[in-house]
Amino acid sequence: MTRSAGVLGLLTDFGLRDPYVGVLKAVALGIAPTASVVDISHEIAPQDIEMGAWTLAASWRYFPAGSVFVCVVDPGVGSARRAIAFAAGDYFFVGPDNGLFARVLSHTPADVCVALTNTAYHLPAASATFHGRDIFAPCGAHLLAGVPIADLGEAIEPASLVPLGVPLEPVWEGAALVGRVAHVDHFGNLISDIPLASVETLLAPGVRVEVDRMAMTRLTTHFAAGPTGDPFALRDSSGALAIAVRDGSAADTLGVGRGAIVRVWGVRRP
Amino acid sequence: MTRSAGVLGLLTDFGLRDPYVGVLKAVALGIAPTASVVDISHEIAPQDIEMGAWTLAASWRYFPAGSVFVCVVDPGVGSARRAIAFAAGDYFFVGPDNGLFARVLSHTPADVCVALTNTAYHLPAASATFHGRDIFAPCGAHLLAGVPIADLGEAIEPASLVPLGVPLEPVWEGAALVGRVAHVDHFGNLISDIPLASVETLLAPGVRVEVDRMAMTRLTTHFAAGPTGDPFALRDSSGALAIAVRDGSAADTLGVGRGAIVRVWGVRRP
Amino acid sequence: MTRSAGVLGLLTDFGLRDPYVGVLKAVALGIAPTASVVDISHEIAPQDIEMGAWTLAASWRYFPAGSVFVCVVDPGVGSARRAIAFAAGDYFFVGPDNGLFARVLSHTPADVCVALTNTAYHLPAASATFHGRDIFAPCGAHLLAGVPIADLGEAIEPASLVPLGVPLEPVWEGAALVGRVAHVDHFGNLISDIPLASVETLLAPGVRVEVDRMAMTRLTTHFAAGPTGDPFALRDSSGALAIAVRDGSAADTLGVGRGAIVRVWGVRRP
Repeated sequence: MTRSAGVLGLLTDFGLRDPYVGVLKAVALGIAPTASVVDISHEIAPQDIEMGAWTLAASWRYFPAGSVFVCVVDPGVGSARRAIAFAAGDYFFVGPDNGLFARVLSHTPADVCVALTNTAYHLPAASATFHGRDIFAPCGAHLLAGVPIADLGEAIEPASLVPLGVPLEPVWEGAALVGRVAHVDHFGNLISDIPLASVETLLAPGVRVEVDRMAMTRLTTHFAAGPTGDPFALRDSSGALAIAVRDGSAADTLGVGRGAIVRVWGVRRP
Repeated sequence: MTRSAGVLGLLTDFGLRDPYVGVLKAVALGIAPTASVVDISHEIAPQDIEMGAWTLAASWRYFPAGSVFVCVVDPGVGSARRAIAFAAGDYFFVGPDNGLFARVLSHTPADVCVALTNTAYHLPAASATFHGRDIFAPCGAHLLAGVPIADLGEAIEPASLVPLGVPLEPVWEGAALVGRVAHVDHFGNLISDIPLASVETLLAPGVRVEVDRMAMTRLTTHFAAGPTGDPFALRDSSGALAIAVRDGSAADTLGVGRGAIVRVWGVRRP
Repeated sequence: MTRSAGVLGLLTDFGLRDPYVGVLKAVALGIAPTASVVDISHEIAPQDIEMGAWTLAASWRYFPAGSVFVCVVDPGVGSARRAIAFAAGDYFFVGPDNGLFARVLSHTPADVCVALTNTAYHLPAASATFHGRDIFAPCGAHLLAGVPIADLGEAIEPASLVPLGVPLEPVWEGAALVGRVAHVDHFGNLISDIPLASVETLLAPGVRVEVDRMAMTRLTTHFAAGPTGDPFALRDSSGALAIAVRDGSAADTLGVGRGAIVRVWGVRRP
């Protein structure tokens, strides 16, 4: 694996009001001064591991090879939950072992995984409440600066990592492909966990999409082609089937949110 | 035109909760790894082209020469609206052709303008819903990296660009100079489209400013010189006449917002 | 003092909706193109100097030596309040003289302090309403680029700087150590001004923490060890005693905010 000029991707539930995110970056730049830091999101709902996992999964593949991701949605900070780092494909990931990385790992298995037990790469006198600053940011920056991942701690089995606890993929129920709304974005678009590859016939006659028992009669490829007011299904840029309302919020219009059942009828079962 | 070390200015309506902004930056840094990325705003109200146009106009001239601006407020994404790039003065601009750049262009005409038709500079398999990631960010980063603008696509006439659809400047109605509130900032300051150069006698006796038929009797040069509670007119740092309330919100106090009519009496008509 | 690769820390009450923060960065990068800019917070409540002072105090020591902080919470912009820069320990600070730096200075006294009277290092024709753009950002960037602090203006006495106007430290009242809630973070944690060094026996038998007359019966070292629902005292990563609710907001649960009195009983008076 080669390293790019060095991008550090950050994902947390810290918000932007408090100094926590700035402190993460300051610590990282003290260790890897030439890193480019990219904020993925700091507006993950507090302690919402599922939202963090989706958000990371929607972004990591667009980063340059060699990028390091420091991800902190960590309700168990200071408890027995493990602090981990792993390499998967061309990337490194650092954060708590609580399911936050489950969607990444279901796409690309870890090549190597460690528990961050080597305190030489932590800040001195790590706190019990802010591992982002004291453990994850320094370990991520050391990876960017060239420290081998094996130096960060004891190897652990990727299979031992904590799962996310929600379905990651749709299932077939008879003739219907059944998934879930995996994310509601700030426009109110409902983004499902149904890959576009499963519904490539989306615009074919007879295809029908149901969200929470409401059938979408309109299927389209982009927002401006949708009707005004009525929800429609579209091919989302995330690579998944989504439900949108043109110039409006599908979540508000349909009154549904994450976890709502999405059924697709009329596509070919493989 | 020469290039600075390379600043990429970003302006979108994506918000900071979703991964969309981080993905733009990741894509850009993959192409132009030494770029410094500066966020102008990602809190443009969804699909509010007018707010985007004002915000860009208030900021671009403070960037180093050679900066590239990638701007995405794009309700028509995927439709027939053109994707464009142009050079104006010492800067480059990339985004949708929907009026978003109208205020910049009314200040500094485009030297050269292209439609982004050369897919060699897009991400492979561009989506129909996220041109920011797939077209605008890569094209902007390629400009920063030194690709000539003419390589990005077919030349188009600057005169053919879509206008903004609202007045960009005040007009004289008899003895009154009549403009509009062009922006309400997060302090609640009402920023007009009346240039300070038109009202350089603002503090002279007999000058009166009316917003939505309420007359301002206080004119001042800075916040701390204003009265407490009453709105007053002041010389805004944006270079325009503004109405403010000290330690408060002029928008709330006056109950007006963007588009409210601003009349100035008692200044010299040129 | 030596300089690192150059980190510019920014703290303002500008919010992220308007272009003000982006303009600060653009101006700074025009002067110091290789600087890494780190946002500490731009969500300081408008004109809330006390919140700004706490936020800066919670972050600056994590930055690399040589970092420059440009801090703008400045209700008195354009008035007689001084614009200042000072060096303290390995860092530089630039902003208004209004108490914003009082918590830093109570920790590390200024080695040298100047009023920013040398207009050669300001933007041309500085406005009376946006000193962040016109004075603070350029002066901070010139410091990063190597300009000696003494060149920025006339030396002033550190003792002449404006104080914050609230207590910075707890006091002993008989057997109780009495402090205040100095900050409420976005999780709703109540962070006091009582240093952990004063309460190192926090988990010893007989220790009791009262907030606004409600006694905490649970003391713990990290969130996940706390009970669910009931507030508990913990050793905060900021180095101070805090009150938290696991998976919830202590501020909401207790109905208190900044300024609430925090009493600690049962710790040793030095």
